[in-house]
Amino acid sequence: MTYCVGICVDDGLVMIADTRTNAGLDNVSTYRKLRLFSVPGAKVIAVATAGNLSISQSVISLLEEGLPHPETGERERLIDAPSMFRAAQLVGRAIQTLNAELGAALARAHVAADVTFLLGGQVAGEDMRLFMVYAAGNFIECGPDTPFLQIGEHKYGKPILDRSITFGTGLHEALKLGLISMDSTLRSNIGVGLPLDLVTVRRGALTPETTRRVETDDPYFRDLSDRWSAALRAAHMAIPDPPYF
Amino acid sequence: MTYCVGICVDDGLVMIADTRTNAGLDNVSTYRKLRLFSVPGAKVIAVATAGNLSISQSVISLLEEGLPHPETGERERLIDAPSMFRAAQLVGRAIQTLNAELGAALARAHVAADVTFLLGGQVAGEDMRLFMVYAAGNFIECGPDTPFLQIGEHKYGKPILDRSITFGTGLHEALKLGLISMDSTLRSNIGVGLPLDLVTVRRGALTPETTRRVETDDPYFRDLSDRWSAALRAAHMAIPDPPYF
Repeated sequence: MTYCVGICVDDGLVMIADTRTNAGLDNVSTYRKLRLFSVPGAKVIAVATAGNLSISQSVISLLEEGLPHPETGERERLIDAPSMFRAAQLVGRAIQTLNAELGAALARAHVAADVTFLLGGQVAGEDMRLFMVYAAGNFIECGPDTPFLQIGEHKYGKPILDRSITFGTGLHEALKLGLISMDSTLRSNIGVGLPLDLVTVRRGALTPETTRRVETDDPYFRDLSDRWSAALRAAHMAIPDPPYF
Repeated sequence: MTYCVGICVDDGLVMIADTRTNAGLDNVSTYRKLRLFSVPGAKVIAVATAGNLSISQSVISLLEEGLPHPETGERERLIDAPSMFRAAQLVGRAIQTLNAELGAALARAHVAADVTFLLGGQVAGEDMRLFMVYAAGNFIECGPDTPFLQIGEHKYGKPILDRSITFGTGLHEALKLGLISMDSTLRSNIGVGLPLDLVTVRRGALTPETTRRVETDDPYFRDLSDRWSAALRAAHMAIPDPPYF
């Protein structure tokens, strides 16, 4: 399993991904699922992946090496995308390319080939954007009404985002809420695990504010998890007992 | 969709079910999914259902009317079950009976026939028990290590249970936590909706402590939801900002 969340608030962008992959319950490993494509001052694009690891890794490699343009044949790399929309189209095309090459063989082997991508960032001259690209190559864009998108094991970590994130939430508060959402998921699904990778980007900065790997023994993340548990306990204990008796 | 939760703590049993059913997004209705079979002083059995409504309703009718015993041909009703284990077996057999009658026809019509049941209660002379019965008629039993079982749309409401419920949690506190879990699910999935039905049974009492329908305008449930939202906001605001910058 995987859990990745992208949050796009007025201040900027947060993307967080776990690193656990499993092929069966007895084959669990750590793989980076969050990638950064950046030309400081010109563009910053972050990509998070969920689903079949071989397909998502190959998509990333295609995006690094470049896909042949359908008409000119020229190779287009993600880092060269002139806009976030064109970047999302390129990710979609890379997924379609891999599915065309491998989809039928994987289906014959009864292996799920589905992948989902989060793609967030900003290119100089246009606004910051966040997209979710589906396995068919189509995509949706995050808007200010619900300023987050999730891929992978998204349900355990959704209630805190549903209740707390608005477009006006500050960037570091948004990162904190993303980490709480991640912690809720880690607790309830062993297929999602530490370490986490995260990136934050201020709107207009065109370069990452921070990139970080949160390791198993990260003192802030441990403290956040303990405080959250204690606060939830205090919260439900402060609610009066039901009067239904 | 549906969300039902059963909690079996040292004090007794809580079962809560929503009432929303939908056949497509434009055909949403209210149906009772929590049923009580009780002979005060002798036995109390609560049944909650998720999945295909026609199958689950017919299973309940079979349990009321009685299934022919495979050897004697005598009709066995749920209310006559001499133990909770026999009650769970009977529910499993009722599901299998319906699947044998309708499964193939539903499969041809591409209609999902899956149902899942929670079955909790106590029969005089033995301890209180809580089971989850699967679509194939097999079942598992809830134990003190993880003293709750969920069916239907279970993920949104699981984190609060994972963090807060232990076997030593009091009965009314357990009900409160079940209602918070239900509220988290209502917020995140419109396929789960009010009113709710609930029942609590004290261990050894052999009769329900309370049965209740929580309506849309129930002041306690509204207050619980508001307090929970406010407490979550206060909780994440009290956590220090990440030091990753």
